Amino acid sequence: MNAVLSPASAPASVRADNKFTDYKVADMSLAQWGRKEIAIAETEMPGLMALREEYADTRPLAGARIAGSLHMTIQTAVLIETLIKLGAQVRWASCNIFSTQDHAAAAIAAEGIPVFAYKGESLDDYWEYTHRIFEWSGGGAGDAASTPNMILDDGGDATLLIILGSRAEEDPSVIANPTNEEEQALFAAIRKRLSTSPGWYSARRANIRGVTEETTTGVHRLYEMQKKNELPFPAFNVNDSVTKSKFDNLYGCRESLVDGIKRATDVMIAGKIALVCGYGDVGKGCAQSLRGLGATVWVTEIDPICALQAAMEGYRVVTMDEVCDQADIFVTATGNLRVITHDHMLRMKDQAIVCNIGHFDSEIDIASVQKYQWENIKPQVDHVIFPTGRRIIVLAQGRLVNLGCATGHPSFVMSSSFTNQVLAQMELWQNGASYQKNVYVLPKHLDEKVARLHIKKLGVKLTELTEEQASYLNLDKNGPYKPALYRY
Amino acid sequence: MNAVLSPASAPASVRADNKFTDYKVADMSLAQWGRKEIAIAETEMPGLMALREEYADTRPLAGARIAGSLHMTIQTAVLIETLIKLGAQVRWASCNIFSTQDHAAAAIAAEGIPVFAYKGESLDDYWEYTHRIFEWSGGGAGDAASTPNMILDDGGDATLLIILGSRAEEDPSVIANPTNEEEQALFAAIRKRLSTSPGWYSARRANIRGVTEETTTGVHRLYEMQKKNELPFPAFNVNDSVTKSKFDNLYGCRESLVDGIKRATDVMIAGKIALVCGYGDVGKGCAQSLRGLGATVWVTEIDPICALQAAMEGYRVVTMDEVCDQADIFVTATGNLRVITHDHMLRMKDQAIVCNIGHFDSEIDIASVQKYQWENIKPQVDHVIFPTGRRIIVLAQGRLVNLGCATGHPSFVMSSSFTNQVLAQMELWQNGASYQKNVYVLPKHLDEKVARLHIKKLGVKLTELTEEQASYLNLDKNGPYKPALYRY
Amino acid sequence: MNAVLSPASAPASVRADNKFTDYKVADMSLAQWGRKEIAIAETEMPGLMALREEYADTRPLAGARIAGSLHMTIQTAVLIETLIKLGAQVRWASCNIFSTQDHAAAAIAAEGIPVFAYKGESLDDYWEYTHRIFEWSGGGAGDAASTPNMILDDGGDATLLIILGSRAEEDPSVIANPTNEEEQALFAAIRKRLSTSPGWYSARRANIRGVTEETTTGVHRLYEMQKKNELPFPAFNVNDSVTKSKFDNLYGCRESLVDGIKRATDVMIAGKIALVCGYGDVGKGCAQSLRGLGATVWVTEIDPICALQAAMEGYRVVTMDEVCDQADIFVTATGNLRVITHDHMLRMKDQAIVCNIGHFDSEIDIASVQKYQWENIKPQVDHVIFPTGRRIIVLAQGRLVNLGCATGHPSFVMSSSFTNQVLAQMELWQNGASYQKNVYVLPKHLDEKVARLHIKKLGVKLTELTEEQASYLNLDKNGPYKPALYRY
Amino acid sequence: MNAVLSPASAPASVRADNKFTDYKVADMSLAQWGRKEIAIAETEMPGLMALREEYADTRPLAGARIAGSLHMTIQTAVLIETLIKLGAQVRWASCNIFSTQDHAAAAIAAEGIPVFAYKGESLDDYWEYTHRIFEWSGGGAGDAASTPNMILDDGGDATLLIILGSRAEEDPSVIANPTNEEEQALFAAIRKRLSTSPGWYSARRANIRGVTEETTTGVHRLYEMQKKNELPFPAFNVNDSVTKSKFDNLYGCRESLVDGIKRATDVMIAGKIALVCGYGDVGKGCAQSLRGLGATVWVTEIDPICALQAAMEGYRVVTMDEVCDQADIFVTATGNLRVITHDHMLRMKDQAIVCNIGHFDSEIDIASVQKYQWENIKPQVDHVIFPTGRRIIVLAQGRLVNLGCATGHPSFVMSSSFTNQVLAQMELWQNGASYQKNVYVLPKHLDEKVARLHIKKLGVKLTELTEEQASYLNLDKNGPYKPALYRY
Repeated sequence: MNAVLSPASAPASVRADNKFTDYKVADMSLAQWGRKEIAIAETEMPGLMALREEYADTRPLAGARIAGSLHMTIQTAVLIETLIKLGAQVRWASCNIFSTQDHAAAAIAAEGIPVFAYKGESLDDYWEYTHRIFEWSGGGAGDAASTPNMILDDGGDATLLIILGSRAEEDPSVIANPTNEEEQALFAAIRKRLSTSPGWYSARRANIRGVTEETTTGVHRLYEMQKKNELPFPAFNVNDSVTKSKFDNLYGCRESLVDGIKRATDVMIAGKIALVCGYGDVGKGCAQSLRGLGATVWVTEIDPICALQAAMEGYRVVTMDEVCDQADIFVTATGNLRVITHDHMLRMKDQAIVCNIGHFDSEIDIASVQKYQWENIKPQVDHVIFPTGRRIIVLAQGRLVNLGCATGHPSFVMSSSFTNQVLAQMELWQNGASYQKNVYVLPKHLDEKVARLHIKKLGVKLTELTEEQASYLNLDKNGPYKPALYRY
Repeated sequence: MNAVLSPASAPASVRADNKFTDYKVADMSLAQWGRKEIAIAETEMPGLMALREEYADTRPLAGARIAGSLHMTIQTAVLIETLIKLGAQVRWASCNIFSTQDHAAAAIAAEGIPVFAYKGESLDDYWEYTHRIFEWSGGGAGDAASTPNMILDDGGDATLLIILGSRAEEDPSVIANPTNEEEQALFAAIRKRLSTSPGWYSARRANIRGVTEETTTGVHRLYEMQKKNELPFPAFNVNDSVTKSKFDNLYGCRESLVDGIKRATDVMIAGKIALVCGYGDVGKGCAQSLRGLGATVWVTEIDPICALQAAMEGYRVVTMDEVCDQADIFVTATGNLRVITHDHMLRMKDQAIVCNIGHFDSEIDIASVQKYQWENIKPQVDHVIFPTGRRIIVLAQGRLVNLGCATGHPSFVMSSSFTNQVLAQMELWQNGASYQKNVYVLPKHLDEKVARLHIKKLGVKLTELTEEQASYLNLDKNGPYKPALYRY
Repeated sequence: MNAVLSPASAPASVRADNKFTDYKVADMSLAQWGRKEIAIAETEMPGLMALREEYADTRPLAGARIAGSLHMTIQTAVLIETLIKLGAQVRWASCNIFSTQDHAAAAIAAEGIPVFAYKGESLDDYWEYTHRIFEWSGGGAGDAASTPNMILDDGGDATLLIILGSRAEEDPSVIANPTNEEEQALFAAIRKRLSTSPGWYSARRANIRGVTEETTTGVHRLYEMQKKNELPFPAFNVNDSVTKSKFDNLYGCRESLVDGIKRATDVMIAGKIALVCGYGDVGKGCAQSLRGLGATVWVTEIDPICALQAAMEGYRVVTMDEVCDQADIFVTATGNLRVITHDHMLRMKDQAIVCNIGHFDSEIDIASVQKYQWENIKPQVDHVIFPTGRRIIVLAQGRLVNLGCATGHPSFVMSSSFTNQVLAQMELWQNGASYQKNVYVLPKHLDEKVARLHIKKLGVKLTELTEEQASYLNLDKNGPYKPALYRY
Repeated sequence: MNAVLSPASAPASVRADNKFTDYKVADMSLAQWGRKEIAIAETEMPGLMALREEYADTRPLAGARIAGSLHMTIQTAVLIETLIKLGAQVRWASCNIFSTQDHAAAAIAAEGIPVFAYKGESLDDYWEYTHRIFEWSGGGAGDAASTPNMILDDGGDATLLIILGSRAEEDPSVIANPTNEEEQALFAAIRKRLSTSPGWYSARRANIRGVTEETTTGVHRLYEMQKKNELPFPAFNVNDSVTKSKFDNLYGCRESLVDGIKRATDVMIAGKIALVCGYGDVGKGCAQSLRGLGATVWVTEIDPICALQAAMEGYRVVTMDEVCDQADIFVTATGNLRVITHDHMLRMKDQAIVCNIGHFDSEIDIASVQKYQWENIKPQVDHVIFPTGRRIIVLAQGRLVNLGCATGHPSFVMSSSFTNQVLAQMELWQNGASYQKNVYVLPKHLDEKVARLHIKKLGVKLTELTEEQASYLNLDKNGPYKPALYRY
């Protein structure tokens, strides 16, 4: 399949063979534009391009059939095509209903790669597409070739679908009582599938060699399952590679939060009070960028260590209850739910901007204000109008503002994250049998390798240890350089 | 006319009377969206809104017929409607072929206000529209009512047109030899008008009470004319109000440069080398925002004082000749021409990003690379492909990147600039006779008033001088507070 | 005299001739240490050293007898020796009772230069020494050679002494009613001198060709006198050279405020709330450095423009009344008096740190808390203990914290200020007759020259205008580059 | 013993009983000044003060005899007195020959606490004093009461002494061949002791229940010993508590590096090129503070991950070989040796400043330039004069610049570190038997406790999880909040 991939600098050639229909995208006419942007992105993703070069011949992912659930963006397109260059087959869906870049999806479909994603999907479509990445053409239900053997996940929805579906095969009660709109759609989708294809989920579960997971939230779910011995296969925690969590989460959000807010609202950041909920890596990046433009940044935190870090940077640490009527811009980055409640929103200033860059839209209790009048300003930007006449501006309906209102993280930092993904897929595919049904992180030497593949592009000149120094520090000159618990 | 202006929070009502045709915009169906954004912008433009309130009854601009040439954006729409609320009539064109926001123009036209602007105008249309703001309906050529009596200018093109046209009436040779594409279009437009309406320019010039000018570049032109005693009417230099040059130029660009680059390219700023040409207020804002996101910022300067300022902030001051093959992002902010030459571009790295946030597109010698292959990525984003195969990314064809690729400065800072504009228009309109044919700045107490109208929105609490303190400092408690040469 | 000056890198040679006694310093044994530090400072003061080189032969200050009143520090020593190298004779006193560096004073005295200064002078000594810089050896009272012919002033005390003394000769009532401790000492000194040497002041006033003044405060006094036509000679406002006020005030304080606070208290800045009173150039520098270390910075302002600037940088603008019980560190930078009052101090938190980096110690109402218990921690650091048991830490008794608790601004930025001083002395000395009895600033080309003399040391590479560019901008390629009202 | 400790706010009372002679300090007359500063420091060390309050009654360290080797500063005085308040006996030495604050040592001795430290100790005295903290008065060599039972270490010298001494008892060859000046002194001290007191080391080693270690370097040594199974007792790695390494190392150095450089040299940071060697927590703090004052900061690194972090913050990553002739200020923060070599120093610019804030003075190869002329400017500040005539300024002879030239980290951040120390001492003392001879870190809930004890002082308001949120995250509302590998 990778034979059809056009080189980075050549014009995109949409497949002459127009019979390929195994995809669902918004508009195939965007493919050429998408291909141009992919070509540019490749120049900003040195880690992935280096892997393509290094493994062009050995194709270590040959035989892997990867079900991918991750925001279908330009950067993901470069990831997908890297996986294919390394020998894998893939089927792809987005892991967020608003995050797809339609020109990226079209460019991927134009290469004959099965992809199911459009910006602004319904929840029903979302789960339908998440099912479709598990439907490999080929034999019948029991035929391994008709299922994927790897999952590449972001947020854990693909993994959840297979595991929850399998449990529901045995105990339908687990999907009986949805507690929110998302669960309604998910449970309905599972019920429908079970009615038509009994055993569909467990058949797939049986064939999965493992999953590599991208995000804090998804990883949290995996550890929870590990704790309860419910993991059906090994998992790689890509999120906690240093070159992921300390780069994508921190530096990515530093660049993409304001980008999203600006594209949505054109608002002046300087002089505003911005409240960042959560001072983890994501919150740290957000706070830094908002201050960089002249906002007064306040922070909320539950963890005293992170709170002390915020204080050491000069951010006042406050509570939402106290200040929800004072801030101008609210950003949630907690991974928690209902951090901004109905009552908080009701007390906000007129034209306050409310957005989320954590994982789920439940950080803001959007459901609780659905009953008020919404006035759409432009895509992903809404006024919620309270009975008092006051309005707040909700971005991306509480979903990820950087992906909903802008284009997500920039290519370079995603290259760092995705290079970890590819290395994790390679490790699981090649050595999966040697892992328990537990959650693993990549060994430090691979983490350092990811960094090494990215610094050259930036003109970084690394110092090499002398023999004397290496011996003094008792280190291999080529690393790894730090003990396991080093925090960077 | 202002009776039809809808209140900020009410839905836009397009005029029932559809016979109004004295406008040229891209798409009237965008009017409602434009009106929503104008309503939001009003909440961010406290200075203009305060003037509307203060002068609602006295309508100090009654009788003024303003020919306005300034980027037709959402913020300008609030300016226009403020001028009208204060009693003026206006006709409007954009001062840049790429800077119009079509939904803003449509919303203005929908109110029955004559506006001539669309994003991506040809140069011929540009000068045609600049003529049209001087064509008031009413009597014949000699009838004062058929001409404007005030100019509100940005960059000086409207003023230039009237003055150059008038000179050409006497000496056609001044428009005989265009030296570039822009002059070709301008000279041709003047020749055409002169052939059909002899005396058109001088008739208008005679009726103009004065001009208020927005930018460094336009102000520079005015001082040049003053030096040569060629100013035909008094001029207010709005640019050099502190609340303009130290706010719009500095804080506006700090927010809008990266916004433009990001919307155009989605590029990661962190880790890149960004070269800012010119360390005036605009350059200072650009440098700060690029560093805030983790770029290494280098600066070029001709002025040793500004160069020393850059050095004091830790920016290396370099020359383009030395580093044009090392930087990743180039930003011109000089007000000069050919700061980036053909040879510089030829030596740049593959995928280097080149953009301008100064005034004219001549800062980058775009003309010199027109001969190479250009590949359009998306509107305002082009690859220039050199014979070597190397590509650079040119934004907005070298025109203002923040207006061409994003939406310009945010409303709040434009409120500061535009409040100065309105105060200057009021002063000239009411007291124009008391001014010589020179360039003036607003008195400090008005400058302070502009600030005063904006700080409340930000929750600023000003300290008041005690009697003892005012007496010690020999100041009026209500200001002005600083000597004339204070630099802020 | 300059023959005895040792070259920068050579060891100091104390004059063999031990009969020189025309000085008053704390401890001559510190001279050698002082000389070493002067030698280092010379390497950091490129502007002064360049003037020494440029004018070594022509000695343009030959004949000038300069009465200097300016903090007697290491940097001032380099200034003094530069003046001498250029041909001047000088007599020197400090302009602040706490700012003398005793090793600097000793090193100057060791060269046979009359200097009168020690750290921690009494007010009586202070005014005594200010008189002594006006007592030139030579003829009698009426002999011009027995008086100086130039003043170099900082804060205006030397100028004030001569002018007030002269007025008192005619109208003793002007020194009849001192309103504070400082005036008591000053008036007493004048009365004493008048009783012994009638006509002493006016004899000196008559011989002064002009004054060059260093600071905002001193300049303010000069403009007040100009307004009232009370200036007896022309004055140069050195403070408002760009390369002074925008460098020394801003960058100097950015480095020296925290330095002073740290040497005095070793306190952690991170996490603290720091309140900066006044957001002029000094306040801007202070705020930046405090935030740079992780403080939350709040600002008080009377001027809405400066307040808006503070807000644009993300500092909350508050009033002292509201927050004096919340902040941890208080810094005054206003040039005003009683900005921090008795009641403010009484309400402060235990261990709050209070200091001043404006001009006079009256910014903090120290007099009002003299009645409480003071416990000295170490030199320039006191606990004021309120009856409640709460303590605040007062630095340098409210005088300049950077000079009282540290060593003032670093050499490099003082070189910029002092190069302006020398240029102003040269201009006044050589062309004084062509000036009115008004206050002048240096022409822009000299301002630019000062910058030019300093950038090389920092590796700055200036871009030169091409002919085409200079012509386009209508500028001389060698400057000046900016219009008069440009604010940098 | 703790009965004699004066309460924080009361004046120090020097023991009436003047017979106490079990100490060695520089000058007992400094005791009262030291006591005043200790009283102030207590107000900035909320963690330690909270422990005093919490454990005043239970005295959990009763019976512990702690041999402490840690910089004898004001902050350490508060630590020492906290240990005593909790029931311990202590004997104390400094772990660095230049880091003692003599007034702090005097104040401790004045309380009758055995302390052996003065600023500028010889290496012989240093090792003599390190022996003395192990000599408890009481019975003979074999009597447990005559030895300590706990070590509190910084850098590992106390631990090293006991372990190396014990090994030398069995195999004298291990101390036969010193390779540098430090080893010469150490080995000589051990030989001397062995000749007079055979079995002295192993007797002590046998009684030690465990060690708590403060620094990266000391911890590194402990892990090396653990790897080789050479640890004779359990060890607590205090350094890797989040509230130590991410606070003291990062925020402490951010405040104390420039403080040290300024007190030593008064140099202007703005405009200089500063090279920071090593971008770990210490290097990160250094880089941030230097940039905050306007330096151009360059970084050297061996670890590609840390190098990429530096690049993401806009620091150019270079090699010493390339740039040693360009930078103005050199700071080592690597924990490595000979990072700055003889040849690097020879190539440096005149007046380049060279200092170390890592652990040992071997980061800079000071030994290699001992052969050149040294000229002392003032304590801890030397010119090294090369045969070329060029001079470099070496601070603290290459030892820790913040402790040698200033007063080390501020109290607040040391409170965070030392609260970890006390908790580790308590855990080891009370539960030491349950630990293996391995290296341990404190459990996360104690780490969070340390933070919790410090945020109140800063006005931080922590958000509490709702039941619903805690359940969603599957967390205890009271923490711990993060997984083990979370990096903060």
